[in-house]
Amino acid sequence: MSYDDNNIFAKILRGEIPAHKIYEDARSFAFMDIMPIAEGHSLVIPKCPAADLLSLDADYAAATIQTVQKIARAAKRAFDAPGVFVGQLNGEAAGQTVFHIHFHVIPRDGKSAPFAFHGRKEAASEILSAHAAKIAAALE
Amino acid sequence: MSYDDNNIFAKILRGEIPAHKIYEDARSFAFMDIMPIAEGHSLVIPKCPAADLLSLDADYAAATIQTVQKIARAAKRAFDAPGVFVGQLNGEAAGQTVFHIHFHVIPRDGKSAPFAFHGRKEAASEILSAHAAKIAAALE
Repeated sequence: MSYDDNNIFAKILRGEIPAHKIYEDARSFAFMDIMPIAEGHSLVIPKCPAADLLSLDADYAAATIQTVQKIARAAKRAFDAPGVFVGQLNGEAAGQTVFHIHFHVIPRDGKSAPFAFHGRKEAASEILSAHAAKIAAALE
Repeated sequence: MSYDDNNIFAKILRGEIPAHKIYEDARSFAFMDIMPIAEGHSLVIPKCPAADLLSLDADYAAATIQTVQKIARAAKRAFDAPGVFVGQLNGEAAGQTVFHIHFHVIPRDGKSAPFAFHGRKEAASEILSAHAAKIAAALE
């Protein structure tokens, strides 16, 4: 996916617009989501131009997930949260709205409905085998 | 969070129960979710004992997210998916059901409802500043 230097997170990284910063290091930056879906909802982004996780440099991916770990631990403590959700959307079809790769880190209180990533029934084994082979064949 | 060696993903890693494997390397393993919520729904896990992302060794976190990148690219190609969702649940309160840290990698077709991680309105700046400070103060 191509990268637009004028997306809002690029502007935040350049200091052109303000953000509620939590943490930064050489390769990543963490700040509050201004449209939180729960208290303590933050975002972690790499300090390099990449629209999505698929196109992100592998070293920056490593640095960014390590910052996600730090922020998740801190947010859990700060909000006394029994759970933490980490989510990352790639492409408009997945719900992405800002095209600078970002991880959502969202404290979960166990009362609001959890995000559920399980289907209601087990898929047929032969279908899953075929899908595994299909994805494996598409690996670079 | 403490780690139970008899969770289902630990058994998969030990080869005690089968899985629809897509890929593995020295530190990570990718396979199909048997309760998929979309075609091509897979899981990526580290080959080390850790219940959640918060307690995962940083090197394994790096290796695992790099495998997530590989699998996301392959799944996008394999299923001709315009979007890819990456999600990771920590703690029962967040919806986690298997207590070996895992990333969901889910192709998104742009037709089914996207996962939405945006609130309906902007939060007050002073609240966000306070929350940023609270999380920052809780950093190790």
